[in-house]
Amino acid sequence: MTVAIVLGSKSDLPVAKAATELLKELGIAYSVHIASAHRTPRLLQELVEKSEAQVFIGIAGLSAALPGAIASHTTRPVIGVPVSGKVNLDAILSIVQMPPGIPVAAVGLDGGANAAMLAAEILALGDRALAGKLRERRRAMHDKIVADSLELRDI
Amino acid sequence: MTVAIVLGSKSDLPVAKAATELLKELGIAYSVHIASAHRTPRLLQELVEKSEAQVFIGIAGLSAALPGAIASHTTRPVIGVPVSGKVNLDAILSIVQMPPGIPVAAVGLDGGANAAMLAAEILALGDRALAGKLRERRRAMHDKIVADSLELRDI
Amino acid sequence: MTVAIVLGSKSDLPVAKAATELLKELGIAYSVHIASAHRTPRLLQELVEKSEAQVFIGIAGLSAALPGAIASHTTRPVIGVPVSGKVNLDAILSIVQMPPGIPVAAVGLDGGANAAMLAAEILALGDRALAGKLRERRRAMHDKIVADSLELRDI
Amino acid sequence: MTVAIVLGSKSDLPVAKAATELLKELGIAYSVHIASAHRTPRLLQELVEKSEAQVFIGIAGLSAALPGAIASHTTRPVIGVPVSGKVNLDAILSIVQMPPGIPVAAVGLDGGANAAMLAAEILALGDRALAGKLRERRRAMHDKIVADSLELRDI
Amino acid sequence: MTVAIVLGSKSDLPVAKAATELLKELGIAYSVHIASAHRTPRLLQELVEKSEAQVFIGIAGLSAALPGAIASHTTRPVIGVPVSGKVNLDAILSIVQMPPGIPVAAVGLDGGANAAMLAAEILALGDRALAGKLRERRRAMHDKIVADSLELRDI
Amino acid sequence: MTVAIVLGSKSDLPVAKAATELLKELGIAYSVHIASAHRTPRLLQELVEKSEAQVFIGIAGLSAALPGAIASHTTRPVIGVPVSGKVNLDAILSIVQMPPGIPVAAVGLDGGANAAMLAAEILALGDRALAGKLRERRRAMHDKIVADSLELRDI
Amino acid sequence: MTVAIVLGSKSDLPVAKAATELLKELGIAYSVHIASAHRTPRLLQELVEKSEAQVFIGIAGLSAALPGAIASHTTRPVIGVPVSGKVNLDAILSIVQMPPGIPVAAVGLDGGANAAMLAAEILALGDRALAGKLRERRRAMHDKIVADSLELRDI
Amino acid sequence: MTVAIVLGSKSDLPVAKAATELLKELGIAYSVHIASAHRTPRLLQELVEKSEAQVFIGIAGLSAALPGAIASHTTRPVIGVPVSGKVNLDAILSIVQMPPGIPVAAVGLDGGANAAMLAAEILALGDRALAGKLRERRRAMHDKIVADSLELRDI
Repeated sequence: MTVAIVLGSKSDLPVAKAATELLKELGIAYSVHIASAHRTPRLLQELVEKSEAQVFIGIAGLSAALPGAIASHTTRPVIGVPVSGKVNLDAILSIVQMPPGIPVAAVGLDGGANAAMLAAEILALGDRALAGKLRERRRAMHDKIVADSLELRDI
Repeated sequence: MTVAIVLGSKSDLPVAKAATELLKELGIAYSVHIASAHRTPRLLQELVEKSEAQVFIGIAGLSAALPGAIASHTTRPVIGVPVSGKVNLDAILSIVQMPPGIPVAAVGLDGGANAAMLAAEILALGDRALAGKLRERRRAMHDKIVADSLELRDI
Repeated sequence: MTVAIVLGSKSDLPVAKAATELLKELGIAYSVHIASAHRTPRLLQELVEKSEAQVFIGIAGLSAALPGAIASHTTRPVIGVPVSGKVNLDAILSIVQMPPGIPVAAVGLDGGANAAMLAAEILALGDRALAGKLRERRRAMHDKIVADSLELRDI
Repeated sequence: MTVAIVLGSKSDLPVAKAATELLKELGIAYSVHIASAHRTPRLLQELVEKSEAQVFIGIAGLSAALPGAIASHTTRPVIGVPVSGKVNLDAILSIVQMPPGIPVAAVGLDGGANAAMLAAEILALGDRALAGKLRERRRAMHDKIVADSLELRDI
Repeated sequence: MTVAIVLGSKSDLPVAKAATELLKELGIAYSVHIASAHRTPRLLQELVEKSEAQVFIGIAGLSAALPGAIASHTTRPVIGVPVSGKVNLDAILSIVQMPPGIPVAAVGLDGGANAAMLAAEILALGDRALAGKLRERRRAMHDKIVADSLELRDI
Repeated sequence: MTVAIVLGSKSDLPVAKAATELLKELGIAYSVHIASAHRTPRLLQELVEKSEAQVFIGIAGLSAALPGAIASHTTRPVIGVPVSGKVNLDAILSIVQMPPGIPVAAVGLDGGANAAMLAAEILALGDRALAGKLRERRRAMHDKIVADSLELRDI
Repeated sequence: MTVAIVLGSKSDLPVAKAATELLKELGIAYSVHIASAHRTPRLLQELVEKSEAQVFIGIAGLSAALPGAIASHTTRPVIGVPVSGKVNLDAILSIVQMPPGIPVAAVGLDGGANAAMLAAEILALGDRALAGKLRERRRAMHDKIVADSLELRDI
Repeated sequence: MTVAIVLGSKSDLPVAKAATELLKELGIAYSVHIASAHRTPRLLQELVEKSEAQVFIGIAGLSAALPGAIASHTTRPVIGVPVSGKVNLDAILSIVQMPPGIPVAAVGLDGGANAAMLAAEILALGDRALAGKLRERRRAMHDKIVADSLELRDI
């Protein structure tokens, strides 16, 4: 598997789905796991150390230690997705404010799809076909907005 | 050692000192370690698993994962001290907002002394002499404030 | 009773229930009280001073003075649970940011169950059977996540 | 004494001084006390219950429980002054967000002088001479700004 | 009328009702007005200057300038009530953080009833019967909590 | 005068200077006044109503009611500049979150120069020469960055 | 067209409608476009450069770069409207805190109507009839509040 | 050049230096540019489109649109570094909260070194030697902490 998606708990599944859908669309192999930085630290360590994934996506809310914990066990790129809750700044700041030496690439609140896109951009550095797909997708996004804008003027 | 104090980095030493001074004063044995949730996750795991400490104090700033990481390796009580920086809400929320099942006892920003006092209160449940010392200290604190207040009126 | 749970108002009952359910499951005796730091300060003082509880849990929202007020009347450990409302940072910061000398062990927003777990961890220092239960529970939590993770892969 | 000023700790003295200077200028009798909601709860209770002050001013930082604790012991008006620190929102929200039934009149961060002015406005309802002084002072404030503004144009 | 309640807009009526109900219960005469600091500044000025109210209550959300605008036209006490919305910190900070010389007594978010109670406490300084009612009400509040607490134990 | 700059207090002068320097450079006539929404509401009203300025700039900190108060007395454009202090979110939110019908154009914290630039952009709609100057200035800004960037590469 | 309204995405349409309704009422010609600072940067550049609009309104949520991106391509006035979401401070701060030299006129959260009103105030500097309409509208707003206030007293 | 570092302004240079030092140490070729999303949007577009860099690092404060603007012109990975100022949440949220489809990999406040490390981790996916260096560096970091910890115990 090229991308390993790790959820802090089952309740983060909707955010993970946004990621898997995009990865599927782009033809990128992935695996999905539940493993908690706090409840299953060794499981997480094993999972990361055994994984042959090139990129990790960690999805977690509250004091979202998961992406940082993944990063502590690998020097491969780790993307962190804060999950929304009652405070929101907790998950965002927990993921962004990593200490020197162990970076996590934070994306926005509930940003499962953007995490997948960032993973794809990273993988595309070594995969010309994928890079092409990303450029096409960017163009499609552009065209969709142009169409939306025209439709608006017709109203 | 009864209390194990773990710092996320050398720069957290001033906050740790406030803790060790109070523990010394109360006659509680302690050890001090540097171990990072992110930079030395296995070292931290070993440290916690081998430790015979009854209470842990984790001191960290930024995305302060350290206290939660300690808690992930033990069912003994863990006290978390957020260290001040440029944002402050990052460390406070990272330590307070733990997920279900793995509590951390958060104290205030740079609250090394309060972490030690909380550790002492926990240990005093099984140590009558220590409980007595805490009550005395509370009284002394009270008397200090009465004296401060009187002095104020004299001015 | 070993643990005294104090609610700032009747509306905090759902958060308290999360605590009592876990305490019951762990076989820890507890009592539940409503007493307000602001509306019944003397009642609270009496309650705390007469109580033989080893650990207190204070549950309150808004300017959540209750856990600190409990702590002002005892040198036994006090756990504070902020209750969610329209602002949330009010209750979290009111409970975490205690002054020097009077610590409160803050847990996360609406963290009734985590408060109970922290109380259990504290009591387990003097109760080997309880310590065993906590380790088992931690293992069960671990197994639940492993099962959730496997189930996910089957989908 | 007509106004009782209570400081949570000696370090809050500069904020209290801004209050006492204005009260002195307005000829309002006052007393200054140090008493902590957390470190000397009974002393605070006695102080408030014995006090013949008509208005209380509570000055405190961090989890600023002091004004609320004063209010819990009296039905006379209590003014709360949050003292600045590393977080600031902690003291502001702790003082503003009081529960139903026990109001505190919050003024701004480090607002010792405004607390005194508010106390004077309250007392002036029953004191025509004082009311006159307040109107004069307001006029003087107005004239000062007019003068400042003219001076500016000359530059 | 003894208390003048001013709403920034019709939509703030539910918060005002919490105030009027308590004032009615306490037998305090009041009037209710809609006047906006921003949309009807002169109307507001006239209203305040002509008013014989002893205490003003200003209720407003967003950039809640209303209580401060009332205070700019009188030296009588002004109580400010922030109304909840999408941000909340906007209304709270707009009301609390008044400049030197023009205090507003801020109460909590949507705190209509607490504003009325604070007004009553201020008026009670010159009205022994009202002071008695407030003490009784405080006692009733106390008894209600005692009853709630007992009921809880029966469950 | 084409632009009227109003400061809430003398201490806001440094922020005002950043505005006047740019206006001078662009050849736009301006006047500077001190007038407070809270301390001199009538003076402010007169100032705004008598002013023949086409654009107003209000500069204030804390609960920054000044720009909104100016806007309440005119239907000409009002630009608001929040001044930094101990909280910062207070001034920003007080200026941005205006109620329906009375807009203020908020610029960034301590943004005196940007307020002047925005005023110039507004005035340039009816002044071709000024519009040309703004485009030139934009080009100069661009060239400065190009130069800075080249210099960087030389290092 | 006199005013060009640009939406970051189709989902911002309700906020745009509040703007178009007011512009229509005031007889100001406008066009509505969807163009994203991030997804269609060149389209946005062309749109702005070709536009003969005198004022731009940019409406966007999250990291709301759109108004600033419009401003980067023109020296005509740009009004920015933050759209509400899960964090809110993200869009507000992204729009307000522009760098030196490139101002954006920020209005409040979801403030489509206020953006239109501000645009009208700017255009009215060169259009006496429009200026008259704005003063009338202000008066109507005033009268509406007077009527609301009277109605309230009748209840 | 493999990594293109773009600064929003000359004042961000210290944060950029932390990045260049690490890249130099790791033997990764880089270029440094100043280009502003707001002041030189076309320059930025050209720079990004002509660049053969595999990874971009955008460094900016305030309403930090730069990393997002870079991302709008490329499908290669973009890392965003928020620079500290008077508010801090402005730059953090502006960089993290990107809209769907255009991800930015946010690192912590002033996190120049972590941005470089993340860039290195991304490049190491296609460069075994670099991957080895990163693992070594991680080990060195680990050993440094072990040494710091031992030194601490000696004191």
